[in-house]
Amino acid sequence: MKTYQELTKKERKEEMERLQALYDAERAKGLHLDMTRGKPDATQLNLSMDMLLQNPYDLIYSRKGTDVRNYGELAGVDEAKELFADLLGLKMENIIMGGQSSLALMYDMMIKAIVLGVYKGSKPWGQQGPLKFLCPAPGYDRHFRITQEFGMEMITIPMTPHGPDMALVKQYAESDPAVKGIWCVPKYSNPQGYTYSPETVEAFAALKPAADDFRIFWDNAYSVHELYDEEVRLADIFELAKKYGTEDNIFYFASTSKITFPGSGLAIMAASERNLDQIRPILATQTIGYDKINQMRHVKYFKTADGIRKHMKSLAGMLRPKFEMVEDTLDRHLSGYDVARWTNPKGGYFISLYVERGCARRVYQLARSVGVALTPAGATYPYGRDPDDSNIRIAPTFPEVAELKTISKILCNCIKIAAAEKYLKNFN
Amino acid sequence: MKTYQELTKKERKEEMERLQALYDAERAKGLHLDMTRGKPDATQLNLSMDMLLQNPYDLIYSRKGTDVRNYGELAGVDEAKELFADLLGLKMENIIMGGQSSLALMYDMMIKAIVLGVYKGSKPWGQQGPLKFLCPAPGYDRHFRITQEFGMEMITIPMTPHGPDMALVKQYAESDPAVKGIWCVPKYSNPQGYTYSPETVEAFAALKPAADDFRIFWDNAYSVHELYDEEVRLADIFELAKKYGTEDNIFYFASTSKITFPGSGLAIMAASERNLDQIRPILATQTIGYDKINQMRHVKYFKTADGIRKHMKSLAGMLRPKFEMVEDTLDRHLSGYDVARWTNPKGGYFISLYVERGCARRVYQLARSVGVALTPAGATYPYGRDPDDSNIRIAPTFPEVAELKTISKILCNCIKIAAAEKYLKNFN
Repeated sequence: MKTYQELTKKERKEEMERLQALYDAERAKGLHLDMTRGKPDATQLNLSMDMLLQNPYDLIYSRKGTDVRNYGELAGVDEAKELFADLLGLKMENIIMGGQSSLALMYDMMIKAIVLGVYKGSKPWGQQGPLKFLCPAPGYDRHFRITQEFGMEMITIPMTPHGPDMALVKQYAESDPAVKGIWCVPKYSNPQGYTYSPETVEAFAALKPAADDFRIFWDNAYSVHELYDEEVRLADIFELAKKYGTEDNIFYFASTSKITFPGSGLAIMAASERNLDQIRPILATQTIGYDKINQMRHVKYFKTADGIRKHMKSLAGMLRPKFEMVEDTLDRHLSGYDVARWTNPKGGYFISLYVERGCARRVYQLARSVGVALTPAGATYPYGRDPDDSNIRIAPTFPEVAELKTISKILCNCIKIAAAEKYLKNFN
Repeated sequence: MKTYQELTKKERKEEMERLQALYDAERAKGLHLDMTRGKPDATQLNLSMDMLLQNPYDLIYSRKGTDVRNYGELAGVDEAKELFADLLGLKMENIIMGGQSSLALMYDMMIKAIVLGVYKGSKPWGQQGPLKFLCPAPGYDRHFRITQEFGMEMITIPMTPHGPDMALVKQYAESDPAVKGIWCVPKYSNPQGYTYSPETVEAFAALKPAADDFRIFWDNAYSVHELYDEEVRLADIFELAKKYGTEDNIFYFASTSKITFPGSGLAIMAASERNLDQIRPILATQTIGYDKINQMRHVKYFKTADGIRKHMKSLAGMLRPKFEMVEDTLDRHLSGYDVARWTNPKGGYFISLYVERGCARRVYQLARSVGVALTPAGATYPYGRDPDDSNIRIAPTFPEVAELKTISKILCNCIKIAAAEKYLKNFN
């Protein structure tokens, strides 16, 4: 079999006609398919409904005896902190139970750093002139949107299968005090599904930033989101940081958005004691407390970290066929053509697809014209600009398996058309 | 009966000895009583437990067909907005369902104004040099704490039974562009229980602030919190503002913290369309959505605004005896002595007590020494400084009626001791 580059001009034109015919046939169907957002489907959500069926009278008192329906226990009930400490390998003293959305927590920590500063920072970020933030890319569009909204200059750091290019991270962070931090999704990264290697995590721990108020925003969003029995281990950044005396550089985040209910789950943050000493009084000004009834709901339902892991295995059983349908279809229709490559994650919520350089936006448009909504090309890069116009984020968790088959086949066809167009043009 | 001022020196000494004997007897009991926080007791919370007993499967779909367990509907489900629009006399298009805590919402709107600015503001507040904020006092300590944390100069505006001194508000707001806003609890004010008169509300609507980014933080925390059948009406500030073209000056807040569960209820904000056009995209960067399951819980349980009003009548039945016990005890032990005055609110959560000038801190200390915790004297003023050292906030909602009787009697004794000490000293 010949790759597209190897085809003669005549063969290429024939291939193009064949692809166009397939494409037109799909368009005639008037499809409306959506693969834009990383969200669970109803079946996955149903798995947590028993949590809501618990007798509310069993949830009223924390083990300390606090009536969780009332004000108090600002940083969360102990048993919730303990549950997430066990699950994530953290110390419960370092955890704050922070509402329902870890994204909102990150936004909150960032805007407070701007107005009030962080522990040991000489000044609030906002009083230090233009700010910069490191953005491993492809990455999470909503991270980038936050730093963009706050007017920070976003510096793209290329991602590798082992994590961000740490030589570059080190170079920027250690030379420029205007660089205030970095976005990280260290396990099953969005969108690649890469997990940072132990060396990468250690390099983060070893970082000696030029800014005394530099913070690693460690968004462990997919901490226990395995797709297979094999569990991918992420090195313990706090443990490694202790060795280097850099624990204060880390703001750690996680949530149950993809464990129980997005928006109605629990979000946590973890930080060093010195950071928390600065954060707690600020939090005490901001609110009188988060939803502790919901904390107790999660605690009493899951009971232990293993309870959550068991639940995640059931979710994996639902998600695996979806990921595999996409991967198999891409494999069946694209392998040998040399027009695309993609990741095969062992967990998380996304697949990262690279099409021919300069073709991602074209693939997006082609798909849209057939009624298939994809995450916009470029979304995985700061400012929405993919310098190679090559990356597309695939979000297979929401559509049904049969739909994913249709979407993936159409996607393959669009990828080939875009590639064929490119080579046809280059050939002319 | 003579007032303390009218007593002879000898009579005063005798009275002092009598008070001291009573005080010592109370101290011997080793009491631990707390009247510090405005929070509901367990009986009041129990009244909302049926809301949590609803079948969760009945809560899943909003009337639009949205699965509320999933991402989406950032500003809240329509039926929740409609419920609060009906309850508060707002338009549902102007409402954002904003999580569980209206205090957190206010903090959030304030910090965003600092970093990002507000609609029609030429610059973010934080880029405009020193900022000032108007603080009607006695007022809510947590409001003042927010403006203090953000380094704003707080300007005390005296409260009257009709609301803040509007001549002074007008003078500051209309002359100084550094004045960025004002804190208001317009109905059953914290701590007096005063409701702003229609003239006061209209004066707010008529305000033409010097700053183009001035905002009235209208914290309608006790909107439906009547203690008696008679309903105190607060004039509609948005309606009046329309007349003056000043709708954009208003940020309106409310919550169910004292309707259902503090921290596990619903918080709302309301603002003009132009404000919301500026706020919504910012909110979309901050979070993917608040807890919509909890919104549906409230909607399906209360069904209508009248459902909430009926619920509030039941709560009033629990709260009224508490307020009346405090008021009756103060009346029985203090009337005729001319050493204190206090409000008799028809709703809300607090009673405002004024003791002899220069005596509030002494009363607080005396009470503490007998084992009675009161809200610290000064807390109701900016920077915790009551210029007259006279005001004490009474929070009668949490302790039991019998406890309130004990507390109030002790409080009366402490008030008399402090007054007697003062006149004894003045007399020497």
